[in-house]
Amino acid sequence: MVLAEELAKQQRSISVAEFFEKNKHLLGFDSPTRGVITTIKEAVDNSLDACEEAQVLPDIFISIRKVSNEVFRIIVEDNGPGIVPAQVPFVFGKLLYGSRFHQIRQTRGQQGIGISAAVLYAQLTSGVPTIVISRTGAKESAHRFEIQIRIETNEPDIIAAGPFEWDRTHGTRVQIEFRSTMAAKKKLLEYLRYTSVVNPHARFRVELDDESFTFERVSQEAIACPVAIQPHPHGIEFGQLKRMVAASDLNLAEFLVESFSRVGKKSAQEICGRAGLNGSRKVRGLSTEDLKKLLAAMQEVAVPAPPATQCLSPIGEELIRRGLEKEFQMDFVAARTRPSSVFSGHSFMVEAAIGYGGRLPAEGNAILLRFANRVPLMYQQGACAITECVTGITWKLYNIPSQGGFPAGPVLILVHVASTNVPFTSESKDAIAGIPEIEKEITLALQDLGRELKNFVSRRDKSKLAEDRARAVCAIIPEIAEKVSEIVEKPLVDTSPIEGKLMRKMIAKKATREGNVTIELNNYTTQDADVSVYEISPDNAADAVPKADFVSEMDGQFTKVWKIKIPPREVWRVSYSGKGGGILDIRGIEDAKKMVVDLDV
Amino acid sequence: MVLAEELAKQQRSISVAEFFEKNKHLLGFDSPTRGVITTIKEAVDNSLDACEEAQVLPDIFISIRKVSNEVFRIIVEDNGPGIVPAQVPFVFGKLLYGSRFHQIRQTRGQQGIGISAAVLYAQLTSGVPTIVISRTGAKESAHRFEIQIRIETNEPDIIAAGPFEWDRTHGTRVQIEFRSTMAAKKKLLEYLRYTSVVNPHARFRVELDDESFTFERVSQEAIACPVAIQPHPHGIEFGQLKRMVAASDLNLAEFLVESFSRVGKKSAQEICGRAGLNGSRKVRGLSTEDLKKLLAAMQEVAVPAPPATQCLSPIGEELIRRGLEKEFQMDFVAARTRPSSVFSGHSFMVEAAIGYGGRLPAEGNAILLRFANRVPLMYQQGACAITECVTGITWKLYNIPSQGGFPAGPVLILVHVASTNVPFTSESKDAIAGIPEIEKEITLALQDLGRELKNFVSRRDKSKLAEDRARAVCAIIPEIAEKVSEIVEKPLVDTSPIEGKLMRKMIAKKATREGNVTIELNNYTTQDADVSVYEISPDNAADAVPKADFVSEMDGQFTKVWKIKIPPREVWRVSYSGKGGGILDIRGIEDAKKMVVDLDV
Repeated sequence: MVLAEELAKQQRSISVAEFFEKNKHLLGFDSPTRGVITTIKEAVDNSLDACEEAQVLPDIFISIRKVSNEVFRIIVEDNGPGIVPAQVPFVFGKLLYGSRFHQIRQTRGQQGIGISAAVLYAQLTSGVPTIVISRTGAKESAHRFEIQIRIETNEPDIIAAGPFEWDRTHGTRVQIEFRSTMAAKKKLLEYLRYTSVVNPHARFRVELDDESFTFERVSQEAIACPVAIQPHPHGIEFGQLKRMVAASDLNLAEFLVESFSRVGKKSAQEICGRAGLNGSRKVRGLSTEDLKKLLAAMQEVAVPAPPATQCLSPIGEELIRRGLEKEFQMDFVAARTRPSSVFSGHSFMVEAAIGYGGRLPAEGNAILLRFANRVPLMYQQGACAITECVTGITWKLYNIPSQGGFPAGPVLILVHVASTNVPFTSESKDAIAGIPEIEKEITLALQDLGRELKNFVSRRDKSKLAEDRARAVCAIIPEIAEKVSEIVEKPLVDTSPIEGKLMRKMIAKKATREGNVTIELNNYTTQDADVSVYEISPDNAADAVPKADFVSEMDGQFTKVWKIKIPPREVWRVSYSGKGGGILDIRGIEDAKKMVVDLDV
Repeated sequence: MVLAEELAKQQRSISVAEFFEKNKHLLGFDSPTRGVITTIKEAVDNSLDACEEAQVLPDIFISIRKVSNEVFRIIVEDNGPGIVPAQVPFVFGKLLYGSRFHQIRQTRGQQGIGISAAVLYAQLTSGVPTIVISRTGAKESAHRFEIQIRIETNEPDIIAAGPFEWDRTHGTRVQIEFRSTMAAKKKLLEYLRYTSVVNPHARFRVELDDESFTFERVSQEAIACPVAIQPHPHGIEFGQLKRMVAASDLNLAEFLVESFSRVGKKSAQEICGRAGLNGSRKVRGLSTEDLKKLLAAMQEVAVPAPPATQCLSPIGEELIRRGLEKEFQMDFVAARTRPSSVFSGHSFMVEAAIGYGGRLPAEGNAILLRFANRVPLMYQQGACAITECVTGITWKLYNIPSQGGFPAGPVLILVHVASTNVPFTSESKDAIAGIPEIEKEITLALQDLGRELKNFVSRRDKSKLAEDRARAVCAIIPEIAEKVSEIVEKPLVDTSPIEGKLMRKMIAKKATREGNVTIELNNYTTQDADVSVYEISPDNAADAVPKADFVSEMDGQFTKVWKIKIPPREVWRVSYSGKGGGILDIRGIEDAKKMVVDLDV
């Protein structure tokens, strides 16, 4: 048949650069606007990963500027460890090149594709080479490169290279230009805001044409860099095992202990026994049949889960709360970091948070923030396992209304999946695949947080009810007191402590009698009160018991400050000799919870 | 800084095979069950593409058999043109290798990844090499290969190769074994059923352990193989243009005409003029600045859309209807093939169909069949632009109820997107990305079909009402006739024509008087009746006017058949000499629409 011969002539190898040039949407370059976000995301991921490896607090500068009618210039600059000159062309000019692909630990970049894809996209649309400046230390000089990718071979094409004067002592700066019709400003700021929430140790400065924005860090501690671990015996497949064996000089027992995570001598012996193989045999001599038995035994023998604390880097409940509180004003935030778990031998950990009320929009769908290895997922919400879990929860159980399964109202949900191998649905890394183990953990975290939110809302509703009642009662107490004082013909009593008790407030009362000033604080709230009593009057209170923590004078007026802590339902008192008058205030407690009764005024 | 040096040591190149081994879910191998479907889908896609190229009616045999506890053997065999022996190892043993990647035309396989990914998955999970047998013609001998992929280099590893005795004269057979816990039988049959709907020229035979299934072809015509075209000047990017120019010896005007689709001499001149470039300059000498001007001019000058009829292969409304009618029993089917359109210089065409009633489930969501280049999309419905369009339609306008935007009830929706470059959201090719131009075409097709369905349903409802009324009237007509005949003392008249008129039926009446037999057909329906009149009686009707189209005799009984066409509200008559009696029937019309009144019986 002639046809087969003809077809054969058309067969040829496709370079991975050609492949991704044609399928650029797979990497998140489907539209010029999205290209801007994706480029910045890839560069920022690399910067954050590098800073983590160098234990540097990241200071990242991002700039987007329109340089001509249709061309945008994107700059991302970091204070990371820099890249040695020999590696720069490969890191930026070759797809599938990187340091993190073969390591089993949590990293943002996984695949060695991201930033080189941006370089590819730039040369495809604008034809302008990417400019990289990098410096690895104060004693080294900086180097500047102009780089493109040879599409047919997927090898770097160095247009220009040489030393460069740079004021930074270490770091990397990448400048990419491509054709776009507009910069997605709102989406970009959203991306940086979310990134800042889950990277509380990083600072981002942004210049968007002529506007500047700063996202400050809320933590001054560099996060521990996850440590690479060996593969877990339960997560290995036949093909991998075969390759590992072929590359090893060890005997079987040593091989198992050395090459796998959590396999000790005892487990190794058990595996050998179950596989019917002698532990002292060289692994390289094992036949295919032997290897199949070995693999089966490895997967049957109980071995502890991989050491997640080393290889994963969760954000932690405290920092998630602080990150969210910095960026969103809410009445309630709760966070959960679930224990680490395993799917197909890969460690993972789910963190989640729920926020409620405050400035969150009261109407419409809840806000959902999805993260994978501290990177916000900005697209394809509908295709993500996180979304599926969120809509799978019966929110009614937690008194949260929902629309088509999705929670509604002033609710914010954050889910962070950290793993040594995040199962994305596509290279564009927009959505997490529906792995049952991960879905289970997300669901448990959300249910737990749902219960907590339910408690908060019902407590708040209850206390609101109690307050409404108390307010009604308080309104008539002074009238009753007046009537009583008329009837019994006694002076009007001070009803404020009753009101304070009913309303659960902090009551400060000041009275001056016979040259003696007394200030009394009653804590009728249900919590410890950490407050400062401020008094400004002509008295210097030199003989005050207890003594003021701070006294200052101005124009004959003395400001006295007592810093005090009062447990619930207890009283604090101070007295000194003086004439009274002046101003009294309690600070460190919200206005609605305090009541100052200055009988001197 | 020492750290950059340390990081540099970990940098390395990643082979595309390593990449996809680690990210196997990207290619649709996320679970062992799904792996079975994906493998068969990739093999069947290749078979159908090859048969199309060879203009062969595809006969495809598929077998799945459990060969050991956890290992499944999958075989796909076709009668295609075969693959020449030198190419077999590359086609199956190297990712990113193929004949269709660089061609601009509609094909099922696009990327040269699919089947080699299945080989990769097999060797990873079972360690068993893939067996390929192929033969390119009766005069050539068949060859058999055992193939794996060298992961580190992405090159084929030929375990065994040699000539082979095979009873097929041409075709390819691939046998892949991998570890799986179960075969997804229901999903697989669904996949084949849908594939059969959009490939009406193909036959599929399936053996699933001990069960067999056949999906027959409904069309005997091999479909025209789409022809590869040149890129369109509006769909080209700077990087591509630069490469094309570098490889060309032509002058600019020739280059434009030769290298691009739909650019004639006039358009070429116009492009040169607008770019301010002389058409007689060698393109290879153009500077980057020249090329930028050229690209801008190419995109500004009006050029007709790419020649879609050559490079696309729509199924057609008639075959879609037939394919659907074969696999689903419905009361109504309508199909639309939209005119071809363009996104980013790529031709595409949308086809859609709506089915209603019959055996479709009356409750729950509508059935949605999604296709891209004649391949069913079986996963990630939620992430697909087709689904988005379906839920974006206001179905209430067409009297179709919906749940959460998705149509509900006995409705089936089919959408087929054919393109020279289907924009999938991921390599697993499960979902189409949300390209506005494509979404617009899908929406228009569905709205059009929605209107048609609405008309059908309202006509049906109206005619049902009319029929109910007519039935009530008909029920009393014979009684009235009886009373009347009693009163006027005349014989009972035949009321059937009245009934026929009221009920809009086809009435056949036969009467024999004085040695003369008359058959009369009244078409009281609203449509042309294409029917056959069957009469079996002892009369041979030799003098019949008109003559019978067919007469046969058995045991003294003559079967006479008249094939006739009667317009609505007209009458057809035949008479011949004879004694009458026997059997009369009308065929080619449903029972509910006919009424036979044989006055001889």
